[in-house]
Formats: sequence, C-alpha cells, structure tokens
Amino acid sequence: MNDMRVLVAEKCGFCHGVRNAISVAEKVLAAEDDVYSLGPIIHNKDVVERLAKEGLKTVSRVEEVRSGTVLIRSHGAAPEQIARLGEKGIKIVDATCVLVKRVQHIAGELEEQGYQVVIIGEENHPEVQAVVGCAKDVIVIADESDLHRLPPNARLGVVCQTTQNPEHFGKMLGAMGRGSFSELKVINTLCKEAIKRQESAIRLCRQVDIMFVLGGLESANTRRLAELCVKVNEQTFHLQNWNELDTSVLHGKKTAGVTAGA
Amino acid sequence: MNDMRVLVAEKCGFCHGVRNAISVAEKVLAAEDDVYSLGPIIHNKDVVERLAKEGLKTVSRVEEVRSGTVLIRSHGAAPEQIARLGEKGIKIVDATCVLVKRVQHIAGELEEQGYQVVIIGEENHPEVQAVVGCAKDVIVIADESDLHRLPPNARLGVVCQTTQNPEHFGKMLGAMGRGSFSELKVINTLCKEAIKRQESAIRLCRQVDIMFVLGGLESANTRRLAELCVKVNEQTFHLQNWNELDTSVLHGKKTAGVTAGA
Repeated sequence: MNDMRVLVAEKCGFCHGVRNAISVAEKVLAAEDDVYSLGPIIHNKDVVERLAKEGLKTVSRVEEVRSGTVLIRSHGAAPEQIARLGEKGIKIVDATCVLVKRVQHIAGELEEQGYQVVIIGEENHPEVQAVVGCAKDVIVIADESDLHRLPPNARLGVVCQTTQNPEHFGKMLGAMGRGSFSELKVINTLCKEAIKRQESAIRLCRQVDIMFVLGGLESANTRRLAELCVKVNEQTFHLQNWNELDTSVLHGKKTAGVTAGA
Repeated sequence: MNDMRVLVAEKCGFCHGVRNAISVAEKVLAAEDDVYSLGPIIHNKDVVERLAKEGLKTVSRVEEVRSGTVLIRSHGAAPEQIARLGEKGIKIVDATCVLVKRVQHIAGELEEQGYQVVIIGEENHPEVQAVVGCAKDVIVIADESDLHRLPPNARLGVVCQTTQNPEHFGKMLGAMGRGSFSELKVINTLCKEAIKRQESAIRLCRQVDIMFVLGGLESANTRRLAELCVKVNEQTFHLQNWNELDTSVLHGKKTAGVTAGA
C-alpha cells in the first residue's frame, strides 16, 4: 500500500456534554460502589465497555434500580423518571447536557404559555423522549410524514433536538409554515458545536477520496455526520472503531478524511 | 366560433376589505364634496374611474390635501401619514381592511416585545409600506435575495403581507429557519379569503383549456393569482377587463376558466 494522507476534521469528537458525562461517571465510580447509568452513558460501545469494567451498571428502566446512585446521562431523563428515583431514596447525579436541559425547560415554558409543543427530532432518541416527558403533550416531528400530527390553526411552540442539522430544521419549519398554523414560536435549540462538527465534516469530505466517520452506530449525532458526508462523498464509511476497518476499501485512495461523533 | 364552456372560480372577485372600502367611498361621496383617496382606492382601473366620476380625487401624498375628507383605502396608511392629516385638521375616514389593521398592530406589538420585525411581502406595495410605518425598524423580505438583510442570531418577529400565498410564506420561513436565528415568532397574517381564491383558481386552472384572471395590473393579489395560474396552465391571461380580450386566443379552446382579483 502506498502512502496515504489522512486529514482529521477541524471540529470532531466528544462534545462538552459527553466529556462532562464521562468525567462525572469516572468521579462517581472512583468514590462509590453501586453506580447505575439510566441508559448507555453515551452511544459509544468502547466507552461504555470501559466504564462497565470500572463498575458502571447500565439499566434501561428505573425499576431495575433498588439502591445506590443513578447517573443521568447527557441526553437527560424525563422528570417523571427522576421523581420515581427520588421516591425510592436513590441518589441522583445529573450529567444532563446544559443545552439539553435548556430544551427541556423551554418545552415546559412554551406549554405554560399556551403553545402546542412540537419537537423536531427522532421520536425514539433519549434526548427527545426526555423532552416529551417535560410537558403534558409534545408532538414529535421527525420528517414530513409526521406533519399530519399537527392540529390545524394552532399556536405551535417549536424546539429542535440539539443534534439535528440546520438544513433539516429549516425544511421542517418551511413545511409547517405552508400549513394552517395561527402562530409559530420557534426557539433555536440546535447545538452550535454539533453544527460546527457537521460543517467541518462536510468541508473535509469534499477534499478527500475516502471518508471515515467514527462513533457508535446508535449515536444520533454520529449517524447525522455520516448521512451528511455520504451525500457529498459516496466513499463514506461509518465505523465504531478502527478494528472495523476493511483495509481493501483504501485501495487506490490517496487521501482519507476522518471525523468522529460525540 | 363553437360553443365554449365557461367556468367561474368558486371563490373570486372583490374581498370583504375591498367591497367595504368601495362602499365607504360611495357613502362619503354621497354626503360630501371634497373627498380624497390616499393612493388609488383599489388597484382596479374601472372602479377608480367610476368613483372619480362621482368626485373621488386620488392623491399620492398627504401634502396634496389641504381640506375636506381623506379616505384611507383598504391597504391602510402609515400612522405618521394619518397623524399629519390630523394635524392639518382634515377629516379622516378609515377604510383599512381589518386584517391589514391586524398586521399593523402585530408589527408594533412584536417590536415592543423586543423582536426585530420582519414582513414577508413586496417592499413597494402600499400595505407593506403602511406596516413598515407602524414600527421603528421593519425588514422587508420579498424573496431569498433579501435574506442577507436579517441580522445573525436575532429574535425575529415575522408577519406576512395578507395576500401572499402560503407556499411562498412557508418557503421564506424555511429559509429563515436554516439561518442563524435565536428565536422566530411568526404570526400567520395571511388572508384566508385570498388563500381560498388562490386555491379555487388553481383547481379551476387544471380543468380548463384557457384561463382568464381579471383585475388591475397593479393589484398584488390579482398578479399573485395570475402567477399561480400560469404555473399550472400556460394558457393564462391577465386582463384588466373584457375589452382587453384578444378573441383569437380562444381558437380551438373548448373550456375557459375565469377568476378575478380583489
């Protein structure tokens, strides 16, 4: 194999929210024995496995925890879940990303102001599910096929999953604007770090023969990076780590780009 | 010429606001001698000429009026113009369409709430100019080429010229949503009557061999009808009245559709 030039995206890798959650987990694990994460702490197999070795037990439901400390991951948790943990006398360490906390707070505020709360995002993503839990009635719009869920002539209060991209956010707002709303109050809750990662991945993509996007297959922000990259460069590969690399894809390539999700 | 089937759009012609302005003008003209309209009362040559015969004098600027009564047409006027007429002791009869009044009122309110006011519409249209006069700083967005006027990371308070169509309104909101706003508060100020006229014109267009859109060449809502129709049926003709009809265009046509602007 000849020499290959490898370029790394200017902005990539774990964001502040994820780094914070990992660091909080490490501190708690160093001090305590019985530590749980409500859902995988991040959508990255390697990190989850490493922290599991340090003692972090990942559970999917509140019912599975009977004692100890529960770590709320960066994606957040619904207030109802946190309340149930509190009732059980379980210690809670909240590592919810500040930007995600903001979306939750705004969703509640918009509902108080009389708006029908709408979040643009993936229905099954934990961040979105936590936001849904922060107001009585939240409509989730993933794409155009969900627009029928919006009531006609409504006052819609709209937020966005933090890791969505501006193009999709704008597209959905445009589609809502064509409909029969009476008022739209939209708070831009996109994460600027995620946008910078997307922009720098797309820029890099255009310059290289082959592009690698590293990160969990279930990580929404990593999948978004991969989706955006493949539109620009068909030779885009989403890998969980370098062990998954099939070196035959490098054949004939002179430059490779690398980015990583959070 | 063979028989031709002529179909008239379900909803068309003068809207409530325009009918009201004409009726107000007729009443004032019946009772008073010195009556002015600030700008053509409607963008329809025939009606303007008829009312001129009844004594209505059309002026373009406040300075041209020294006495008598001024009629504010359905498109409205800027508060500053009305104040200047008041200072001169001139009687004002306000026939501003209630929906246009609402846009003016909302523009002022949005500014008070700290939003940068934005109106989606035609910069030189009297309705838009009157709205611009209702707040200290209003940005007019006619199409994508005006988006550079929006400040970055702003709280935008958005209204729409009443006679725009929902497709364009949505398109502009989508474009704003892709940008770097921090908050968008959009009040749907589209006229539902105008939307029904547009929808019924488009429906009719699809069924006929030739389509006629009647109304003033300077009438924004009539031009919008013609623009929408020509996209669906290339054989669309915008006429000010039937005298302008070139009968040769009817050759070989079996069905004609007719709509009219306000």
